[in-house]
Amino acid sequence: MESKSYMIHTNGNGVQSNGVQGNGIHHVNKKGSVNKAELRTRKPGWNIRASEMSKNTLNPIRAIVDGMKLTPNPDKAMIALSIGDPTVFGNLPTDETILQAMKDAIDSHRYNGYAPSVGYLQSREAVANFYSCPEAPLEGKDVILTSGCSQAIELCISVLCNPGDNILVPCPGFSLYKTLAVSLGIQVKLYNLQPEKSWEIDLEHMESLINEKTACLIVNNPSNPCGSVYSKEHLQDILAVASKHCIPILADEIYGDMVFPGYSCHYMAPLSRDVPILSCGGLAKRWLVPGWRMGWILIHDRNQTFGSEIREGLVKLSQRILGPCTIVQGALESILNSTPKEFLDSTISFLKSNSELCFSALSSIPGLTPVRPSGAMYLMVGIEMEHFPEFRNDVEFTERLVTEQSVFCLPATAFEYPNFFRIVVTVPEDMMVEACSRIREFCKTHYRPDTQDTSDPDQ
Amino acid sequence: MESKSYMIHTNGNGVQSNGVQGNGIHHVNKKGSVNKAELRTRKPGWNIRASEMSKNTLNPIRAIVDGMKLTPNPDKAMIALSIGDPTVFGNLPTDETILQAMKDAIDSHRYNGYAPSVGYLQSREAVANFYSCPEAPLEGKDVILTSGCSQAIELCISVLCNPGDNILVPCPGFSLYKTLAVSLGIQVKLYNLQPEKSWEIDLEHMESLINEKTACLIVNNPSNPCGSVYSKEHLQDILAVASKHCIPILADEIYGDMVFPGYSCHYMAPLSRDVPILSCGGLAKRWLVPGWRMGWILIHDRNQTFGSEIREGLVKLSQRILGPCTIVQGALESILNSTPKEFLDSTISFLKSNSELCFSALSSIPGLTPVRPSGAMYLMVGIEMEHFPEFRNDVEFTERLVTEQSVFCLPATAFEYPNFFRIVVTVPEDMMVEACSRIREFCKTHYRPDTQDTSDPDQ
Ligand SMILES: Cc1ncc(COP(=O)(O)O)c(C=O)c1O
Ligand SMILES: Cc1ncc(COP(=O)(O)O)c(C=O)c1O
Repeated sequence: MESKSYMIHTNGNGVQSNGVQGNGIHHVNKKGSVNKAELRTRKPGWNIRASEMSKNTLNPIRAIVDGMKLTPNPDKAMIALSIGDPTVFGNLPTDETILQAMKDAIDSHRYNGYAPSVGYLQSREAVANFYSCPEAPLEGKDVILTSGCSQAIELCISVLCNPGDNILVPCPGFSLYKTLAVSLGIQVKLYNLQPEKSWEIDLEHMESLINEKTACLIVNNPSNPCGSVYSKEHLQDILAVASKHCIPILADEIYGDMVFPGYSCHYMAPLSRDVPILSCGGLAKRWLVPGWRMGWILIHDRNQTFGSEIREGLVKLSQRILGPCTIVQGALESILNSTPKEFLDSTISFLKSNSELCFSALSSIPGLTPVRPSGAMYLMVGIEMEHFPEFRNDVEFTERLVTEQSVFCLPATAFEYPNFFRIVVTVPEDMMVEACSRIREFCKTHYRPDTQDTSDPDQ
Repeated sequence: MESKSYMIHTNGNGVQSNGVQGNGIHHVNKKGSVNKAELRTRKPGWNIRASEMSKNTLNPIRAIVDGMKLTPNPDKAMIALSIGDPTVFGNLPTDETILQAMKDAIDSHRYNGYAPSVGYLQSREAVANFYSCPEAPLEGKDVILTSGCSQAIELCISVLCNPGDNILVPCPGFSLYKTLAVSLGIQVKLYNLQPEKSWEIDLEHMESLINEKTACLIVNNPSNPCGSVYSKEHLQDILAVASKHCIPILADEIYGDMVFPGYSCHYMAPLSRDVPILSCGGLAKRWLVPGWRMGWILIHDRNQTFGSEIREGLVKLSQRILGPCTIVQGALESILNSTPKEFLDSTISFLKSNSELCFSALSSIPGLTPVRPSGAMYLMVGIEMEHFPEFRNDVEFTERLVTEQSVFCLPATAFEYPNFFRIVVTVPEDMMVEACSRIREFCKTHYRPDTQDTSDPDQ
């Protein structure tokens, strides 16, 4: 076996196909002599290793959650405030119009074949019409349909960045940006958000990270995990930095329009004068059907700064696995145009009241510092670790919260932001009330009003 | 503007986030002096280029078709024998059971949320049960659901190969293998199929290509573009080569079970004793719903040769964009188990009769050498170029066939196999008849029985 395997390699190694009709020529080593290079080519039996890219595709949420001891208290029913899927508890069903649009698409028999890899033109036009505005007009050609917003983000990062480039990513922020970038050999530079300023970007810090290898700035508004919604002015300030340094923006606007009454949702593109923007979105959140995997990229490039290269690059990349499910594509126009306005309103009103409930409950708990959200479906809570000396960090804190109270909140280390945890506010109200009172009990048990100052004053 | 931009870079260049709460320290060059390194970092205005990866994502079919002058004869209706989508002409609708399964999944309200990135366990188990057999048993954990067979292939190549590795790919073969591999920096080695032996692999040639960097052998059976179906013995011979050299197999079996009466479809896994196999498939062809983007990977690894690394690698890669549409996942069990047997039978019977019709019509045309298919939906036709001196190659031949006869067949240069063209046999019978008679007329016009021997005998 060993020697057979060796023979083959001296014979066949390096012979390439001529591309069409090879004649199987072998370069036989007539003398049968063995040189070092040939020995090295000998195969040592089965030795299949996963690729570097697959090993470098790291999911921090999984890494952290899988490493936690999550053993709930057997006397209390588990309440998961960690799951970013608004559909799990059944209290936020999608609209019947949306389901009917799907059934109509099926019954039409028109959406079973392959669509163009960027999506049906009609569906792309429906998205363009939905988001087009005078300050940032869109046509069908400016829209690429993708398999969820995740693939939209993947295509945008892949088209804008080469290995060795870097991208600017919010901290705390949605972990997929880093997961994708790192696997592609793209460096991630985290810019700070400021909890004390409703999570506005520390623009000075962000700007300090920019160098000649900075290929893209990712802005996520409204934000996961912060629930923040940026003012027009702040978005303009961000755009000014991007403009000054000529950095294109990937705007992750999947929570677009999911803002609480009293706040306005501003998309970035209408505010941009010169910065080209790839806006990523999809049906997942606002239409409450994340499993359907319908996302999109809106190409905003009024000054032809992206030029044809980026558009063509996106088209090429879309041809790798082709677009999203054609049934959902077929239903898209009707989903966008016929879903009653009340559907979004009632989703928002629920999210607002639940997050207010949670915010005010947690605000009054000594040792916790929740940050009031103004949109999306999340709320971040700071842990004053000095008052919880039993726990070294947010992971230990949230782990024990499961053990004792059967309440699971995601430690924000998963978002590169230790000593916070994230609460998803889509759970039914009664669960939220119960969860908050258990968190209160937990904190009461472990809170130490005055921790000893262990530092040596002489140092 | 230029100088502002310059200032920023001397200030901010190279400052990295501390990962959590940066303090925005700037390294200001107090003296204001300019050194070369700083000058180089100056941004020359907007200069956004598409990434190398996007540029290296080459679709040969598009490249060739887009380069062709396809101006049909205005007096004849266009007949496209080029489109690999069985649904376009409406003569091969999917089964009502399949559509009903989708509507049931929608009505259940159970499939709107996120599924695990590898798919619902129940759906994975349905696929496992469908393909499991005593010689190659499968469980739910052995199945990964993907966005079409295309993504299945992408994940398999991505998990098995590193940049610099090579993979063995059939020639002629489905172009996606090369598209994906090249974009990932993986070298493609084309092994020859033999038209005179019903497209069996030239095993000697294939073996001669193997070296220590060969990470995977791709076998596509039944084949696009050949319509070939391999015998059990041939598959065993292929497996023997893979076993000898310890090369895992990516079996693209998307046309599995689509074989004509008299032939049997053998999947590779049940024939393998030691070679680990990733079998890729999906709903696209057999169930005639390519747009729905439902594919899968079956992990056949009885001897734990892949080990946990490959499985974990596949899971990690699946988390990049998450799996296929949950509605299709929800319908999958019912699609696999309830679609009547007659549906496949009648599809096959149509494909067989249409391909026989086409084969015998073209067989009698001087200058053409069709190769009889035994499955899938394709038929390859050799052009005896020496008898068509007006045309330099298959691209010119098929281009003129459009100009004169309004019949479009894909030049097999798209499959790295010049001087052949591919016919898709899913078009309605009357179109096939008409197309064949037009091809006959075209060949009659351009055929030269005896071409002059232009070579100089003295040379
Ligand atoms: C900020 C953000 N962007 C993108 C996504 C991914 O969306 P999709 O499920 O459409 O891929 C999510 C999902 O949670 C998200 O929170
Ligand atoms: C051989 C082969 N493999 C894979 C595919 C891709 O299948 P899907 O449409 O499910 O991505 C095709 C599609 O034509 C094919 O011919």
